[in-house]
This record gives sequence, C-alpha cells and structure tokens, in this order.
Amino acid sequence: MTRPFEVHREQIQLILEAWGMAREYAATTADVLSYADLCGIDSHGMSMLPPYDRLRRAGLLNIGASPTVEQETPVSALVDAGGGLGHPAGKLAMEVAIAKARAIGIACVVVRNTAHYGACGYYTKMAAEAGFIGMSTTTTPGVTVAPTGGAQGRLGTDPWSMSAPGKEGEPFLLDMATATVASGKVRNKANEKLPVPEGWVMSSDGLPSTDPLDLIERKGFLTSLGGTPEGASHKGYGLAAMARILSAGLAGAPMLLRPEEASQPRTGSLAHFFFVMDPGLFRDGQAFREDVAGFCESLRQTRPVDPQKPVQVAGDPERANAAKRRQAGIPVGAGLLAQVRTLAQASGARWIMG
Amino acid sequence: MTRPFEVHREQIQLILEAWGMAREYAATTADVLSYADLCGIDSHGMSMLPPYDRLRRAGLLNIGASPTVEQETPVSALVDAGGGLGHPAGKLAMEVAIAKARAIGIACVVVRNTAHYGACGYYTKMAAEAGFIGMSTTTTPGVTVAPTGGAQGRLGTDPWSMSAPGKEGEPFLLDMATATVASGKVRNKANEKLPVPEGWVMSSDGLPSTDPLDLIERKGFLTSLGGTPEGASHKGYGLAAMARILSAGLAGAPMLLRPEEASQPRTGSLAHFFFVMDPGLFRDGQAFREDVAGFCESLRQTRPVDPQKPVQVAGDPERANAAKRRQAGIPVGAGLLAQVRTLAQASGARWIMG
Repeated sequence: MTRPFEVHREQIQLILEAWGMAREYAATTADVLSYADLCGIDSHGMSMLPPYDRLRRAGLLNIGASPTVEQETPVSALVDAGGGLGHPAGKLAMEVAIAKARAIGIACVVVRNTAHYGACGYYTKMAAEAGFIGMSTTTTPGVTVAPTGGAQGRLGTDPWSMSAPGKEGEPFLLDMATATVASGKVRNKANEKLPVPEGWVMSSDGLPSTDPLDLIERKGFLTSLGGTPEGASHKGYGLAAMARILSAGLAGAPMLLRPEEASQPRTGSLAHFFFVMDPGLFRDGQAFREDVAGFCESLRQTRPVDPQKPVQVAGDPERANAAKRRQAGIPVGAGLLAQVRTLAQASGARWIMG
Repeated sequence: MTRPFEVHREQIQLILEAWGMAREYAATTADVLSYADLCGIDSHGMSMLPPYDRLRRAGLLNIGASPTVEQETPVSALVDAGGGLGHPAGKLAMEVAIAKARAIGIACVVVRNTAHYGACGYYTKMAAEAGFIGMSTTTTPGVTVAPTGGAQGRLGTDPWSMSAPGKEGEPFLLDMATATVASGKVRNKANEKLPVPEGWVMSSDGLPSTDPLDLIERKGFLTSLGGTPEGASHKGYGLAAMARILSAGLAGAPMLLRPEEASQPRTGSLAHFFFVMDPGLFRDGQAFREDVAGFCESLRQTRPVDPQKPVQVAGDPERANAAKRRQAGIPVGAGLLAQVRTLAQASGARWIMG
C-alpha cells in the first residue's frame, strides 16, 4: 500500500514531535528520513523509527537535544549533537560548511556526540544545490563487516557520499556503503530461500559463502566492497577505515567497533564528517557545472550491455525512484505500517496514514 | 636480478636529466618513481620510463617544463605543469597544500596541463608525514574501464589515495585504483594461460568473462571495483567518476576519455587533485594520531582467517615490501632492464646498473 509523500513525511514528523523532539528538529529529521523513502533507500527512511524508538526507550538517545556549534575557524567547525539523532546536527553542519565555503572557498565540519543521521546523500545534495562539491562520511552502529583477511567483525557499513553540481536538478550524487551490500539484501535472499551471489557474505570463519544464513543465523559477516581478497576487498575495507578516521577519529569518538561494545552502545557514540568546496576557486563555476553535466550525459550515452537498461550516473536511480514515488506515493509494507502505528499510538502522535 | 635502491633511483634520475629535465625536477621524479618500486608498486616505477620516452619522442611531453603556481587563495592553488611530467608539479602542489593547511587548516590544490604523476600514495604520504590528513586523485590516460551496464570504455583506472598520520613512520595510507585490478594482473594470467577470477574482466559486449584474452586481444574492459553489477560495481564506477570530477573537472581538462581521443592524446591532458587537512582543527593533533595508531593496531589484531596471514591496514603491504627491498635491492626483470639500458644509451645517460 502507498501513501502520498507529504502524508508519509508528516507522519514521521508527528511521531518525532510526540517523542519530545522540538518542532524544527522533527521537521528536519522527517525531511531526511522521507527523502530516503522517496529515493527508494527504504533502509534509511520510516523503517528507522522502530530502532530509534528502541534506543530512545533504552535511554541511549537524547531526543530533546539541540545541536550546537562548539568550536570554529574560518574553514572548520565542530558541532555537538547533544547525544540526539544526527539529522538536525548533520543539516546544521552542512549549512555551516556551505556558509564557510561561500566565504572562503573550502570548509570541513565534524559532528560529535551524535547518533544515526539517515542517508548521507541528503547532506551532500545540499552542497551540490548550493553549487559546491560535497562529501560526507559517518560511522555506523552495527559491527557487521570483517576486515579483509579477518574472521571477526570490526567495521560497519561506514558509507561515503560525494556530490558535484551539474545540470540543474541533476547533481552527480554518489551515496554508497563501503560494504558490498547492505544486510537487508541478504535478509531478502534468506526470506526467498535463495543463495546470495558470491562476494556478498563471509562465514564466521571469514570464508566466502553463498548461504545468507551464514550472516543471519551463524554470526558471519558482510564483505567490504570488492567481495573477496582477489576481488580487491582491501579497497572497500580501506575506504571504511578512512570513513572512520574522518568521522570518529576527528570527533574523538570510538573508532573501532567491538561486538561486545556494540551490544552496549553509549549515547552519542557516532560521528559524522562533512566537506564542502567551491569549484570557483579553480575556474568559472558555471563552466565547471556545464562540464560535469556534459560528462554525466556522455556516460549515459555509453552503449549499454542491455538496450533496455541505459547506463546510469550516480544519483540517477534515486531521481528515477523519486519521480515515480512523487506520483504513485511511498510504498510501506504492512509489517512496517503496523509497527509505526503502534509507535504512534504509544506516544500519542496523531495517526494520519489511514 | 636486483640493484641497490640508491643505484636504481639514481639511474632513473640520470636518464631523466639526459632527456633534458632540470636536475631538481629529475630528482623529484626519480624519488616518486623509485618510491613505487621500493613499495612493490612495480607498475608505477622504472617501468614507466619506456612509455614516458614514447610520449616524449612523439612530442606529447614537455620534458623541460617547470611547474608554476598560477592562481592562489588562502585555501587553494592552481598549479600548471607546463605540459610536463606530473611528478614535479604534484610534489609542488602537495607542498603548497601543506603550507596552506599549516597556516589556515585546510587546502586544496589542482594541477592542470600535466601528465602521469606516478603512484598517488607518494603525495598523500607527504601530508601524513606533516601530521595532516591527505587525499589525492588523478585522471589516468588509458581508456580501459566500461561504466557499470556499459559496453564501451569510458574511464581509466582513476585512483584515489587517502592518508592519515598514526604511529610514527606508519601512516594509514590507502592507494587504490578504482578498477578491480590493474591490466598488468590480467596480462600475468594470460602469460600463464590461466583464467582470471570472476569480476576482473568484461568482454567487448560488457559481459562478465574469465578469459584474460577478452581484455588483451578482444577489446574487452576492466571492471570497476565491485566487479559485476550485483557485486556493486556502480560504487567503483562512481568513485572513478568523482576522481575525474575533482581532477579534470576542476582543472578544465578533458573529463571523459573516448577511445578515439586516447589514441591521439594531447600534451598536458591529465589533471591531479590534492587535499590536506590539519586534524588540529577539531581536537589535539597528537591525541588524534594516537587514536589512529590504536585503531590500526586493533585492526591488525583481528583474528585472521589464515593464522599465517595477519590482517593488514592500508600502507602495511607497501611498508613490508620497502623493508625487504631496502635490504635485498630492487628487482628489475631482464626485459625491462634491457629496455631501460637502450633508453640510457640513446639519450647518452650514464649507465650505472651494470
């Protein structure tokens, strides 16, 4: 079943407000979560409300927190999220970075004492819409990925997003976990009793596996991008490590996840990193945008393997989903809908999803 | 056969000087090339002299060029390599970026009108040795990689390097092509008449192949990191595109490689990008270094799949090679040695490799 985008977004906000989040921050958080659902990144949208609720009720999330800028230079800022959700802090961080880049050309902002901030592409899209290049990384809470050659979980899906302005409304927008795939994709295969492709999963001994239950029931791991050592998974592993250095390392947050700590998370144990740069530092900004737009268009014109599937550029799949879902509404499975309705009822939030 | 590192490095410099490169720039270029050989990155060391010679003799490389800083702000600089090799320009760019980061905290430098600059880890290692975080990307000359879902070459191996200071002498140092593997690895398999692992190569129709000759004789392609669409090769493809945006896009250089243009390269058609950031913007720099060192050490302590192969961190394999080769000398195959001797004789360079 589907609901109109605005209803879907509003329902998220109503629940966040009922939990005690200030109206402004609830609106921002609803923007970020509904952006993910609109773009087809269903793992990072409304489906995050149940896990956020669990953290909140366990006293691990300061839902009433206000993000504050703690420390500034002309090219940098450190934002403290106050142990709350990362979305309001992330938006503030990107706004500060954009303002500084507008003034001096480049800025980096780090957020500490924070929690999950949603889909990282939301933030780099803000930079691209301002005409700037953007990057963001974050630590992630799960201990799901073993380093190449290792048989213990040490990393999360630690994503990177990178953006550049191109054709109006069509920025280059890469938003990628450094794991080959998200655990949700493995769970889907298990639900269908299908094997997973080689390179998605490792057994608890760190050996390649095509059995999704090795991950889900037998304490195996997700792989780093590359899938196997001979597929160069040390590169995905390296990108995950750098994501942790830039976010947790610069924030003074825990850099390494140990399974025993992950089961007892601290409030505010995550960290985010943001980078913004004005291409006008090097050449005319409009000429740069036109070149990026032409580059993306030329990539799309590559002869496709399957004539029915044109080559896409980072950002295209999400825009295609958003165009469809703005028309057809946002699909929400019956199971998630029931969970979210229960959350709404428990917190006294108005229920508008029918 | 092997030669002592210093002899190997000096031989490279002698040939570059004989070609007409200024002594200072020849020394820098020899430093960068011999660094690659020392670290076991044999594809980017002395073996580059024959292709550089071909470019030079074709009039596509201004061997006597001097790099110059063309345009500056407190956080940025644009360096023009004068159509020469990228190594002297790359070193200058990183020196300028480090100096600016020392003054204000963050800097980006772009190099235009340049050629191959060697192994990009050389430059980010400079940042780490200064106590800073570093990044570099560059465009590459070959048209060897097809975008995900495409059956035409459009990209090169377009690498990223990222570094962070940790334990003294052991920085985190990621240096990775965005293709799954370099073409040299495919050629090695062909020479041994072995198949390549799934995910390394595509046929000229863009379909997965395990036949190395599909790449080498039948106009197939290298894959982007991830290997196949279901292995998430759109991520490696996205990282390659972003490398091109940051280097060629900001430099105003050609962003897209078309095979017909690659066979007629212009002088100075490549571009490089450099980023440097002082972690002291966010917290005590020494505390950051200690956390990075501890993070790397904890990753190394992960239980290994094979007890004989401890888990490594980005930079470890190169350092292990360098330690061995400093002792045992740099191996140079008989074929390469003969080619380089011929180059030396043709240019009147002193031959010191015996």
